[in-house]
Amino acid sequence: MKVPPVKGTRDFYPPQMAIRNYIVDGWKAASLRNGFEEYDGPIFEYLKMYQIKSGDEIVEQLFNFTDRGDRKLAIRPEITPTLARMVNQQINSLPRPIKWFSVPRLCRAERPQKGRLREFFQWNIDIIGIDDVLADAEVIFTAINYLQATGLTADDIVVKISSRKMLAAILKEIGIKEKDLESIYTILDKRAKVPDDAFEEMLAEKISDADIRQKVTQLMAAESIDSLSDIVSLSDKANESVDELKKLFQLLETMGVTDFCKFDITIVRGLAYYTGIVFEIYDKQSQLRAIGGGGRYDNLLKQFGGPQVSATGFGIGDCVLGILLEEKGLLDGKENNRQIDYFVACADKQFAKNALEITTKIRRAGFSASFSYKATGLGKQLKQASAENAKKAIIIGEEFEKNQLAVKDLESGDQTLVDIDKFFSQL
Amino acid sequence: MKVPPVKGTRDFYPPQMAIRNYIVDGWKAASLRNGFEEYDGPIFEYLKMYQIKSGDEIVEQLFNFTDRGDRKLAIRPEITPTLARMVNQQINSLPRPIKWFSVPRLCRAERPQKGRLREFFQWNIDIIGIDDVLADAEVIFTAINYLQATGLTADDIVVKISSRKMLAAILKEIGIKEKDLESIYTILDKRAKVPDDAFEEMLAEKISDADIRQKVTQLMAAESIDSLSDIVSLSDKANESVDELKKLFQLLETMGVTDFCKFDITIVRGLAYYTGIVFEIYDKQSQLRAIGGGGRYDNLLKQFGGPQVSATGFGIGDCVLGILLEEKGLLDGKENNRQIDYFVACADKQFAKNALEITTKIRRAGFSASFSYKATGLGKQLKQASAENAKKAIIIGEEFEKNQLAVKDLESGDQTLVDIDKFFSQL
Repeated sequence: MKVPPVKGTRDFYPPQMAIRNYIVDGWKAASLRNGFEEYDGPIFEYLKMYQIKSGDEIVEQLFNFTDRGDRKLAIRPEITPTLARMVNQQINSLPRPIKWFSVPRLCRAERPQKGRLREFFQWNIDIIGIDDVLADAEVIFTAINYLQATGLTADDIVVKISSRKMLAAILKEIGIKEKDLESIYTILDKRAKVPDDAFEEMLAEKISDADIRQKVTQLMAAESIDSLSDIVSLSDKANESVDELKKLFQLLETMGVTDFCKFDITIVRGLAYYTGIVFEIYDKQSQLRAIGGGGRYDNLLKQFGGPQVSATGFGIGDCVLGILLEEKGLLDGKENNRQIDYFVACADKQFAKNALEITTKIRRAGFSASFSYKATGLGKQLKQASAENAKKAIIIGEEFEKNQLAVKDLESGDQTLVDIDKFFSQL
Repeated sequence: MKVPPVKGTRDFYPPQMAIRNYIVDGWKAASLRNGFEEYDGPIFEYLKMYQIKSGDEIVEQLFNFTDRGDRKLAIRPEITPTLARMVNQQINSLPRPIKWFSVPRLCRAERPQKGRLREFFQWNIDIIGIDDVLADAEVIFTAINYLQATGLTADDIVVKISSRKMLAAILKEIGIKEKDLESIYTILDKRAKVPDDAFEEMLAEKISDADIRQKVTQLMAAESIDSLSDIVSLSDKANESVDELKKLFQLLETMGVTDFCKFDITIVRGLAYYTGIVFEIYDKQSQLRAIGGGGRYDNLLKQFGGPQVSATGFGIGDCVLGILLEEKGLLDGKENNRQIDYFVACADKQFAKNALEITTKIRRAGFSASFSYKATGLGKQLKQASAENAKKAIIIGEEFEKNQLAVKDLESGDQTLVDIDKFFSQL
């Protein structure tokens, strides 16, 4: 009986697995380089965990189920609720600052599209307990630090940055009521994704006052932080956020990554929970979905029953990133790290047992070794050695009776005879 | 609102994550050393995938659910069905032999007990396409090769080995009918786990003939391969399997691992799908569940709609293994690999910006670096450096104005002044 894979999932054959490992290992290395420690949680949690953060609408984007204990559970669509739960559980004993990363496997019951699958991997980093824009800067730096390590440059990608706190202050200044902010965010978040008139239409449904509407449209077209005061006279609160945003850009300057960064007021982030700096990373031509995004979320731990603790972080998925790396020619085989130290071949069948003995001795010494199961000709065995990307071949022939091995460097082609004892003592 | 984790799952805080990474990285290294390539599949598959291999009883051990497309799905309780599906999908293009490994996250809806959780990680290796006991030997060697690398010795663990094919031939010789074999296996599989009389009782329910029953009990008490012929005169078919088993032990001898291996006829493996050599790995005192097990399964690919291709492999979970490593004192901190190359401290607040600049330059050069968010005293910063296990501290003080850094080796305590340019060019 043949059963197909489920649509929107991926099979990772060794070549695809090598690419996934290349991406995930890069995430891990960049995290460690930047001082983050790894954590992980369970693949499923109580369903209500996700409702707390994202409301009831999230349920239909989840793979949820009821177990035999009648618990309502869901496969995790993101790891932030788990992070909030875990940090709250040990809030008094965890050393601060909490700088954590994770590379969770996540599932969302969405319709598969380009760059969006029903199962994917996501790099998450978070700094908890630092109420300073320096932490936001470090989070953005870490993302860029990884992306640069893949070979992507400021010609390929852009980090678009704004401040939810600043936007809230200015919108209130313009005349939007506090209680309407959340629904306005949802509309503004679509600014860059819909045509002008569609945007105006959405706005008109929510804001009846034409003056206010015009101001909002003007605001959404602001090209620099300095130009904001031309649109509306900034309140103290707005100015405070503007200063914070300016300080962020200064920090990014000190960190040497401003060529990757750009102020963009249309970056709002759909989710209600952002409270400060917000950012999204795009390919420069904006032909793909966002590569990732994040920002400050100072209320989440409290929402999960913990204290008010500030936090900032981001998530970068492997799907859009993988497409971009592929398109830019940055997956050129270097990610396929299969390499065998020694391929042990035998010149004659009679040495098969010796070949096995040598192979396993090499493995026990901590090096990788391979051999052929079949007593084929030497040429065929050496072909297999090349196919398996072996560095050296050890050929066991009649010299074996004189306690010698022929060691052939498969790159240079050089071949030397070595005493077996010497070979192992030098390994 | 506070939500607890789901019972039987684990939160991996950085210390627990370090242990998990230590185990999983060891699995990966041993796999690569022994010539295996990594693969992975989706976390969920069609429910029927698991019914094909394990029958309908498996359903209640699964976390299964129906998605909005009305597909009946299940979180994977094992990866072998996925392996069979993937290999069958590319059966004509995959280079042989297929030597693959995976370290899947698996879920089973069982009652949590010591060494058995509802979510765990499992190391799987499989050799597909080699109908030779040499492949079984290599699989067993690879398991031992990993376990030895953790520090476990032949005093700690034992690989108990038998042959399902041999058992079938002898049971038929004794008088068990082919159609009853499967249900007898289920009973025999419990031999080592139940008292003598309970075993006899189970056997009596299935086998009415007292002579046959006695022979089966005698067989299950056989202590060596050679003693089997004292119990029953072996058919040609039985002798063939006996010879194969003897050859396996010879190969394990050549591989240098017989001190870990023991013939044990009570190793039957519950699952119907095993067809040849079978084995289980236990702690020597048999105080824990099996650490892992495996064997030959020559019919599985065919069951999944593919051709008849021979296969052999094993699975080792992280739960029992973790308990054993802990009990044997083999988790002594070496698994916590957090290490920061440089901690950048500033002797005075005025150098905070310079510290940030130096920190990020080090990170951009590919080394790990950390710093303090707070302008605390130098002593406190150096304390943080030690807490983060930094190798060296860079102290930015007034020498910075002469373009110099103080570099302090945190192990030896030695401190030297280095020109900034020189520091970065030597990095």
